[in-house]
Amino acid sequence: MDNNFVIEIDTKKNVEFIDITERIQEIVFLKKQTTGQCFITVPHTTAGITINENADPDVVSDIIAYLDRSVPSNDTRYKHSEGNSAAHIKSSLMGTSLSVIIENGNLKLGTWQGIYFCEFDGPRKRKIWIKIT
Amino acid sequence: MDNNFVIEIDTKKNVEFIDITERIQEIVFLKKQTTGQCFITVPHTTAGITINENADPDVVSDIIAYLDRSVPSNDTRYKHSEGNSAAHIKSSLMGTSLSVIIENGNLKLGTWQGIYFCEFDGPRKRKIWIKIT
Amino acid sequence: MDNNFVIEIDTKKNVEFIDITERIQEIVFLKKQTTGQCFITVPHTTAGITINENADPDVVSDIIAYLDRSVPSNDTRYKHSEGNSAAHIKSSLMGTSLSVIIENGNLKLGTWQGIYFCEFDGPRKRKIWIKIT
Repeated sequence: MDNNFVIEIDTKKNVEFIDITERIQEIVFLKKQTTGQCFITVPHTTAGITINENADPDVVSDIIAYLDRSVPSNDTRYKHSEGNSAAHIKSSLMGTSLSVIIENGNLKLGTWQGIYFCEFDGPRKRKIWIKIT
Repeated sequence: MDNNFVIEIDTKKNVEFIDITERIQEIVFLKKQTTGQCFITVPHTTAGITINENADPDVVSDIIAYLDRSVPSNDTRYKHSEGNSAAHIKSSLMGTSLSVIIENGNLKLGTWQGIYFCEFDGPRKRKIWIKIT
Repeated sequence: MDNNFVIEIDTKKNVEFIDITERIQEIVFLKKQTTGQCFITVPHTTAGITINENADPDVVSDIIAYLDRSVPSNDTRYKHSEGNSAAHIKSSLMGTSLSVIIENGNLKLGTWQGIYFCEFDGPRKRKIWIKIT
């Protein structure tokens, strides 16, 4: 079995964070990988990936609202003609890749940590690339 | 010897950056790892990790002060009931993991670079997970 | 052949993003690496690295302009005596390292993704360290 996997995701809103922890965990199970590293990357420039609390959904709402205030979508000073500069900026602030330890066949995350795909210019069809080593 | 290590840390302030470079370097020495990669991750959602200047402590103070101005802790628009939304936001801005090259048994860092644990909601007992590959 | 490479770069402006995708791709070709991971890190504390759109140069201009507005270079509240605190802050916001999948001898990036060295305190001679695994 190959080490490279793809998750496809249909985002529903213009800006939203989607918990993808379970879907990545499923891939680790399928691969029967007991130890190693799981690299997760987003091949888009108006989306990102971050780890944050998955218990209270208000945490993610507060992150989204902060980013909207800090990087307003309708700032007249943007030059990029597609009108989605805010999404590009947020992508670089959150980052487009991260890595998680695999231990005993599981993603090794803290108690409250979930992995979020960050849509900043949806709704769109998106991909997430996973590499297990 | 295993490849996984834990550093425990007692933070003293609500918000502070703690230089953990030496403690990570000690683990690389103990492991007698001469070449490879050192992955460092924080299993918390109100803390982070970053690399920045370790010569003048004013640099880290200025980063902390900027984050406090940009992400005020007492913004009434936050919805998360625990009152620590600013800490969660700062965690995603700084990130919760990074990787450093190991060369000749040492962490390969630039002259002025130190690795900082970023406490955003302390004081607390915290953990840092290290994996050497 | 070793797995460690260095790119040297002379930045021309105080703040600029330089597309280094081709130079990293060249190293992957030279190494004849068909599969693996390419780790890219900046040994500086007033520079960074990010992935974003490489089609319209206005995207990168908009990211630079946002960072200048969010992190003003002349804020009188900075304490660091060298006067480049804004550069240090931007470095931690963008991050100083990232990793890209290598597949079929190529960096595996999204259609619009380029890898940018972020100069925040130039012009200077800078280095980028690459490790291929």
